[in-house]
Amino acid sequence: MNLIRCCLSLARRSPSHFLNISSSQTLASPSSSRSKLITFQTMVSRAYTTPSHPSGRLLFRQLFEKDSSTYTYLLADVSHPDKPALVSFPFHVKLIDPVDKTAERDLSLVKELGLKLIYAMNTHVHADHITGTGLIKVRSTPGHTLGCVTYVTGDGPDQPQPRMAFTGDALLIRGCGRTDFQGGSSHELYKSVHSQIFTLPKDTLIYPAHDYKGFTVSTVGEEMLYNPRLTRDEETFRNIMENLNLPYPKMIDLAVPANMVCGLQDLSAKPVEAISN
Amino acid sequence: MNLIRCCLSLARRSPSHFLNISSSQTLASPSSSRSKLITFQTMVSRAYTTPSHPSGRLLFRQLFEKDSSTYTYLLADVSHPDKPALVSFPFHVKLIDPVDKTAERDLSLVKELGLKLIYAMNTHVHADHITGTGLIKVRSTPGHTLGCVTYVTGDGPDQPQPRMAFTGDALLIRGCGRTDFQGGSSHELYKSVHSQIFTLPKDTLIYPAHDYKGFTVSTVGEEMLYNPRLTRDEETFRNIMENLNLPYPKMIDLAVPANMVCGLQDLSAKPVEAISN
Repeated sequence: MNLIRCCLSLARRSPSHFLNISSSQTLASPSSSRSKLITFQTMVSRAYTTPSHPSGRLLFRQLFEKDSSTYTYLLADVSHPDKPALVSFPFHVKLIDPVDKTAERDLSLVKELGLKLIYAMNTHVHADHITGTGLIKVRSTPGHTLGCVTYVTGDGPDQPQPRMAFTGDALLIRGCGRTDFQGGSSHELYKSVHSQIFTLPKDTLIYPAHDYKGFTVSTVGEEMLYNPRLTRDEETFRNIMENLNLPYPKMIDLAVPANMVCGLQDLSAKPVEAISN
Repeated sequence: MNLIRCCLSLARRSPSHFLNISSSQTLASPSSSRSKLITFQTMVSRAYTTPSHPSGRLLFRQLFEKDSSTYTYLLADVSHPDKPALVSFPFHVKLIDPVDKTAERDLSLVKELGLKLIYAMNTHVHADHITGTGLIKVRSTPGHTLGCVTYVTGDGPDQPQPRMAFTGDALLIRGCGRTDFQGGSSHELYKSVHSQIFTLPKDTLIYPAHDYKGFTVSTVGEEMLYNPRLTRDEETFRNIMENLNLPYPKMIDLAVPANMVCGLQDLSAKPVEAISN
């Protein structure tokens, strides 16, 4: 079952009371509405390095896919009768997921928890503006790709405490995304992280799209102190990023065109190895 | 650097104000004190599926090791001037960790967060009784091995809300540990889970020692409804467990004798592949 297809289908049938983000690329259905409106009625709480919501509104689950070291995030407003939920992940990984195993896992969990999946979001596309309640904000953080965004929960008294930032591939825990992808730029990434993420409160929780070392969460304060790349001056950072000598991504020629139409073209369910060769 | 050795060394030098558990095997140093006393000055809070502490005392981190699909848990009382911390993991995995990469990662994180590591706990040994504040309780949950325990946070008003249960290999998310290890018993495991874990409040968070599907947390209520093995009657469960046809564990002949002395014998730093062949 294709998660993206399912989410878009659900979104077309459901009232858009969960997210309030308008996007020119991310959430567009394949055939129409390039500025779909979604409403995010949040979630959130008080704690030290664990987000919670005083009224118990937030259901938050972090899910991992080992082969690609990718995190998927499930968030739901369980105070609402419909328990509206969203799933956040980078599309390019889901596209290459053999036989959509993690999509099945995620959808099964949504069903078991009695949630209503309203939207699938990703962090690798450009959301051009935000409207509505401001309970979640989209910050443009280009550098890994031109269209990367970081989703940040709001700062009102009814918001999760500490705040939560879903940084995609811009900022990883003790690392960052590569900058040699389409539209990537080490200069832009440095500027994005320092202006859009390192300016958040230090206890803001960092939830990245990937982790290769086994970390599940960090904070802005920790990354400002210990990120081995982003704590350096810009020239050093650019030098590091330009000399990583990473292999050309196996999937990029397949995944990028597919992502441009939200992954809705037909892909045969071949295993990763078969597709990548 | 050997994490176990380090923890025991630290523990010998530090006041035992963090945990209050006496154990005949788990926390014993190799040469002495078979009933070391530890104090757990907790942690805990209010939220839906995310533990937190109203006063911000709990620092909680979940860490993952991909090759063995193992979780390590770091918990600290950050309201105490020393920020006493503990690390919880199954020893048998750490022993076979090639060049102790995850131990280095864990110790580095403890240092960066300014914590004082007081103790390393594991869930595969028998802790024979608990004393002290009752802020964390040890429930004997044999079945995967004879000595398995589940650590559960307390139920007082100053405790984490929801409660947290660290189930080791007894109860996994939508699964359970195998019962063909030393001292394993499907009958005992069934009894343990039903009497010691499924009797906890339904919103109690389940943090297992392993996960093979990418889940990071579950709840008692979820497992009571959706665990494909433990929701069955005992006879069906035993039949399932006795017909898993799992391969003989590669490491068991090396790891079990090593665990009996808390992993303190010398092991050359060969990679897993080399050791297991």
